Amino acid sequence: MQYHFSERMLTIQPSAVREIFKLTNAPDMISFSAGNPSPDTFPIDALRQVTENLISDKAAFSKMLQYGISEGYNPMIDVTAKRMKEKFNMMGEDDKLIITSGGQQGIDLFCKAVVDAGDAVIVEAPSFVGSLNTFRTYGAQLIPVPMQPDGMDLDLLEKALKENPRVRFIYCIATFQNPSGYTTSLEKRKAMLELARKYDVLILEDGPYNELRFSGEHVPTIKSLDTEGRVIFSGSYSKVISPGVRLGFLIAGNELMQKIVIGKQATDVHTNLFMQAIASEFLSKYDLDAHIAKACALYKHKAELMLKCIDAEMPKEIVFSRPEGGLFLWGVLPEGKDSAELFNMGVEKKVAVVPGRAFMVDDRAPCNGFRLNYSMPTDEQIVNGISILAGCVKEFLKK
Amino acid sequence: MQYHFSERMLTIQPSAVREIFKLTNAPDMISFSAGNPSPDTFPIDALRQVTENLISDKAAFSKMLQYGISEGYNPMIDVTAKRMKEKFNMMGEDDKLIITSGGQQGIDLFCKAVVDAGDAVIVEAPSFVGSLNTFRTYGAQLIPVPMQPDGMDLDLLEKALKENPRVRFIYCIATFQNPSGYTTSLEKRKAMLELARKYDVLILEDGPYNELRFSGEHVPTIKSLDTEGRVIFSGSYSKVISPGVRLGFLIAGNELMQKIVIGKQATDVHTNLFMQAIASEFLSKYDLDAHIAKACALYKHKAELMLKCIDAEMPKEIVFSRPEGGLFLWGVLPEGKDSAELFNMGVEKKVAVVPGRAFMVDDRAPCNGFRLNYSMPTDEQIVNGISILAGCVKEFLKK
Repeated sequence: MQYHFSERMLTIQPSAVREIFKLTNAPDMISFSAGNPSPDTFPIDALRQVTENLISDKAAFSKMLQYGISEGYNPMIDVTAKRMKEKFNMMGEDDKLIITSGGQQGIDLFCKAVVDAGDAVIVEAPSFVGSLNTFRTYGAQLIPVPMQPDGMDLDLLEKALKENPRVRFIYCIATFQNPSGYTTSLEKRKAMLELARKYDVLILEDGPYNELRFSGEHVPTIKSLDTEGRVIFSGSYSKVISPGVRLGFLIAGNELMQKIVIGKQATDVHTNLFMQAIASEFLSKYDLDAHIAKACALYKHKAELMLKCIDAEMPKEIVFSRPEGGLFLWGVLPEGKDSAELFNMGVEKKVAVVPGRAFMVDDRAPCNGFRLNYSMPTDEQIVNGISILAGCVKEFLKK
Repeated sequence: MQYHFSERMLTIQPSAVREIFKLTNAPDMISFSAGNPSPDTFPIDALRQVTENLISDKAAFSKMLQYGISEGYNPMIDVTAKRMKEKFNMMGEDDKLIITSGGQQGIDLFCKAVVDAGDAVIVEAPSFVGSLNTFRTYGAQLIPVPMQPDGMDLDLLEKALKENPRVRFIYCIATFQNPSGYTTSLEKRKAMLELARKYDVLILEDGPYNELRFSGEHVPTIKSLDTEGRVIFSGSYSKVISPGVRLGFLIAGNELMQKIVIGKQATDVHTNLFMQAIASEFLSKYDLDAHIAKACALYKHKAELMLKCIDAEMPKEIVFSRPEGGLFLWGVLPEGKDSAELFNMGVEKKVAVVPGRAFMVDDRAPCNGFRLNYSMPTDEQIVNGISILAGCVKEFLKK
């Protein structure tokens, strides 16, 4: 049987990161390559308790088993929208919020509503490869704009906007970016919004790590600076509750959201109702801020430990990001060096990073950056792994 | 803010059925317009029990909260594939099965893998409007082929295949079709597969109602007749467990499935893991066949009651389908009559059907069919509702 595939699928490959996961899944590997939140941060007992309560009320539980509406379970919408409004000043008068099957689905449904094949999307370089692949499934051309420690290079952003009349939106992870750990400064956020207005494009702000700040000052989301519905915010419960529950949300202007909801009807009808009920009960009855504070304390400890080991052992030619939150930090080798080689050396010595090319629009070109995850390894693994990696780096730099 | 929408979204409207639901949601309305399984068939106590067990094992529960793989939770894949193989002779040597977020998602992901804008899809007329809308989101042209009580009109099917070189697949709900309740005969299934071979197109067999047989003999699925990976089977747990859990599955040849899995990574990453664990525990520990037998007994009773009332009260000019399973029956008014008028008369008298045009490719053209659901109304509502509806029909036929 010779299958005829759609054009969108002809060029897409499985995410390189997933292939790397397979390679680095050996039991004796120290892995800094994960993208997962630490299971130690999951509110296990609270979720068990609310689940227990939910199933004890037979009539209420039965309602969770019937079809629901595409926008989401009303108590879940309400508690999420209230939090986003009060804490982050999002949810303008014309904005709507829907519950999605993970943050990724919000990104997918937004593309479905606005991207035609051949349209262009401006992305940070490096960026989250899951989103890049979603954009590719809509036939979008991806235009990378280099990330700096305080956000996109604005000159190159304006150049990209000027040269590409078919740009539909700018995609950014403004806070604790994956993979770099960089946070876009308030000035750059304002400038990006201004440029988006000037060239009449939208901004898709992806905020899965926003609440994981363990040092420094909160920076307002771009969505909170937007008064006209130009910014769409994709949120996720994966890092503040659990990724396995596949719960996220999307905030967009009403007219746009109507189209997005039609798209959701045509993909999964609605998000699992029982899980929405569990999560909305958890969010109503428990203190999410307190829960997040505990997760942040853990990540602060891990990040500081990793940076302490790096400072002690890594050659000074390698520059590392100093994230104030999130799950990742980013190492940059001297220009011209390719981190794919370092990755191979690391795997041989049983320590795994993710080579930067995996996060690039062109993932076959050499890239001198690499990602380190600190949420999953144990303290001991961090100490030993960075020591081994530092050895690899020294050897690599001599080559 | 003036939004620029994708071409696929410019022409799509919210499902007419959903609009009808709003109209027929009045508390004093007798509704035969639903598409839901009866909540009396949900295995509430069993699901509560397995959920209780799952949350009692803290370590096992914690694993359900982490990211999973896109193909699905392995025990859920295994129990589903085993059942489909042993009971329905599907799962050929080259076939793979993945777990989807409801049957609808399988249909969506299949389209993502094979449909380009401008491609054609042959659909039964009438058909399930949710799928028609999914096909529209991929820019497919829909080619309707009339349904007869034993399946598609084969002459018109071949004509459609001959005239349209860009047909990618034939979409069919071969068993207890929504909306007609018709079941395609074994001969027609074989003939459809033969035609698909002759014109080198795929068949997407949608089987959400397959297990709800309450009379007559099992008819093999088209997928079970397929030896070359030409048929893709979309299955659903919505009607045999519960729709709120959003669990379905898709069976396709390995090479095709690899592309479909990449599509799933780009949409919702994976289906809710906790719900998959609950369902797989339920499927392993409980007797699904016995559970389904109870649901079928209920539907048999409801369908027979409705048909008894119809036989007693409806004018003989109206022909009704005699389904052997599923949730629906289909009334056909004399040619030239438009059921949309009957729908309006019914709503005035507080009884709601779904006018057939809602299930047609062109949903603005008059249609003489209409759908009746018997799974949701009470016995009393069936008796009273059919009586009122018969009055409307008599009045309508006099016009």
